[in-house]
Amino acid sequence: MRVAIVGATGAVGKELIKVLEERDFPVSELRLFASPRSAGKTVTFRGEPLTVEVTPEGPIPADVVLASAGGGVSKKLAPLWSSAGAVVVDNSSAWRYDPEVPLVIPEINPESARAHQGIIANPNCTTAILAVALWPLHKAFGATHVVVSTYQATSGAGAEGMQELLDETRNHLEGRPVGHKVFQHPIPFNVIPHIDAFQENGYTREEMKVVWETRKIFGEPEMKISCTAVRIPTLRAHSEAATVLFERPVTPEAARAVLEEAPGVEVVDEPERNRYPMPLSATGKWDVEVGRIRKNLAFGNALDFFVSGDQLLKGAALNAVQIAELLL
Amino acid sequence: MRVAIVGATGAVGKELIKVLEERDFPVSELRLFASPRSAGKTVTFRGEPLTVEVTPEGPIPADVVLASAGGGVSKKLAPLWSSAGAVVVDNSSAWRYDPEVPLVIPEINPESARAHQGIIANPNCTTAILAVALWPLHKAFGATHVVVSTYQATSGAGAEGMQELLDETRNHLEGRPVGHKVFQHPIPFNVIPHIDAFQENGYTREEMKVVWETRKIFGEPEMKISCTAVRIPTLRAHSEAATVLFERPVTPEAARAVLEEAPGVEVVDEPERNRYPMPLSATGKWDVEVGRIRKNLAFGNALDFFVSGDQLLKGAALNAVQIAELLL
Repeated sequence: MRVAIVGATGAVGKELIKVLEERDFPVSELRLFASPRSAGKTVTFRGEPLTVEVTPEGPIPADVVLASAGGGVSKKLAPLWSSAGAVVVDNSSAWRYDPEVPLVIPEINPESARAHQGIIANPNCTTAILAVALWPLHKAFGATHVVVSTYQATSGAGAEGMQELLDETRNHLEGRPVGHKVFQHPIPFNVIPHIDAFQENGYTREEMKVVWETRKIFGEPEMKISCTAVRIPTLRAHSEAATVLFERPVTPEAARAVLEEAPGVEVVDEPERNRYPMPLSATGKWDVEVGRIRKNLAFGNALDFFVSGDQLLKGAALNAVQIAELLL
Repeated sequence: MRVAIVGATGAVGKELIKVLEERDFPVSELRLFASPRSAGKTVTFRGEPLTVEVTPEGPIPADVVLASAGGGVSKKLAPLWSSAGAVVVDNSSAWRYDPEVPLVIPEINPESARAHQGIIANPNCTTAILAVALWPLHKAFGATHVVVSTYQATSGAGAEGMQELLDETRNHLEGRPVGHKVFQHPIPFNVIPHIDAFQENGYTREEMKVVWETRKIFGEPEMKISCTAVRIPTLRAHSEAATVLFERPVTPEAARAVLEEAPGVEVVDEPERNRYPMPLSATGKWDVEVGRIRKNLAFGNALDFFVSGDQLLKGAALNAVQIAELLL
């Protein structure tokens, strides 16, 4: 299969290349595209050097285009790529809310991917990491209300976000002025409850993505979900604290049993051994860690749990490659 | 008034000295006590040098003892200090759940302090920071269910916790091995959903403190509260994301109006100007910042809000001095 990656030199693009290698995706030809600034760079794929090309304004000769170059590029170019015969797996938010475009997590709604019309959307990272754990619980016990607070890594803002955390932390430690460019405020040793733009209803777009996208992926347009999305000074795995009310009787033990069997999930829930989900252990992992599974103390028949998942993998590159695998 | 500080060289002890100065507390004599390791150090109070003494195993000649030397010391010595005539304001958890001991936030239940029998307990930092914002909303609209996820600074583990974050972050940045001693896992660029010991019900003691203490301070023994307490790599202000269901009709505007008038609270809620609570802005402030006030999207008649408050001030030293002020 001829594969193209658009945005190949970004944080997600680099992971896409690695994930294609590690999952032994049947690539007959790989072409890498990026902005003029990054074109000309050499990247190694399966031991061979590949030169990064400038993203063309027209068709790309590929069977699958894995796009991770931002919403503007995808909005404009994905229709051109798909009308030239490629299936586009798009990592931006440009197409996620289009009723004609399936929004897919392979563990949840693979059948939607197969009904594509040329473009398949990859969900927001925070949504994907929560959904992969929430879905098996929803199927088993019927989730009615979901409240989630996030602990999101700087990788969500791309490679520049991670670099800003590292550089500005160094400045902080050495007593130099601490600046910010990628984030709205200095991120070292800080917490910023603001990711993406604020909406009329007081929620950020990042928070609304979790609402809109979970409903679409689950096929539950009325599901009651609320989110607080918070940027914290970590590098690349997102964590989330979830409270979920269910319609059918649930216990932590029953939930744990369901999650143990669920694809894409690793139950890490041995508090007595200090084992629970953490960015430190979730980074680089394909599965999303789920733990701290317990009865919520405020609501009847409700659970709390905590997830950590690699924002660049299940939250982006891994899920995109898994979608491409559905097309084989 | 003769004041003694026990644990005077710890993170909270140092803030106690500063807060006594800044609030012009009528101190006629100040004596400072600490463990033998710290005794002999010199500390400046109102421009005068004071020598730190070893905490005695018996009575302390003071009218008020501000104790911040850990639960073990307080459990054993607070009754001796109070029976010798001092009122003990204790910052540990040793006495908080004793029905004879008032647990006090001056903005909420000052009358309880006045009914003391020699010992007054200062609440857990996470509880205090949430409660000061929750109480006025509870009075106005009747809170029925509270779900909170915390973003807790390393200062909650004392000066050693903050030092470990700084030292190990430096190690991380310079490519050296990253260790941990104060925390259960390395804290730089990580998130640890584990503060204090795990209980039978799957919650940590830190999480249960928020439940137990909020109920006691509010005089609402049945209030439905659930908490996820999470340590993050910040230095000294705690943040918390709260979802609160109310029995009487509430709107974000009405809540904001109530909070604007509430003591101990600063409404920081102008998302359009990128203003919301953050550790960066809450550090060093007496008031707790409250913002991101909005209608919760999952529940009817419910609000979400975000708070940041200085763990060492309203979460510890400031509240203790405010309690002492009630005794004047």
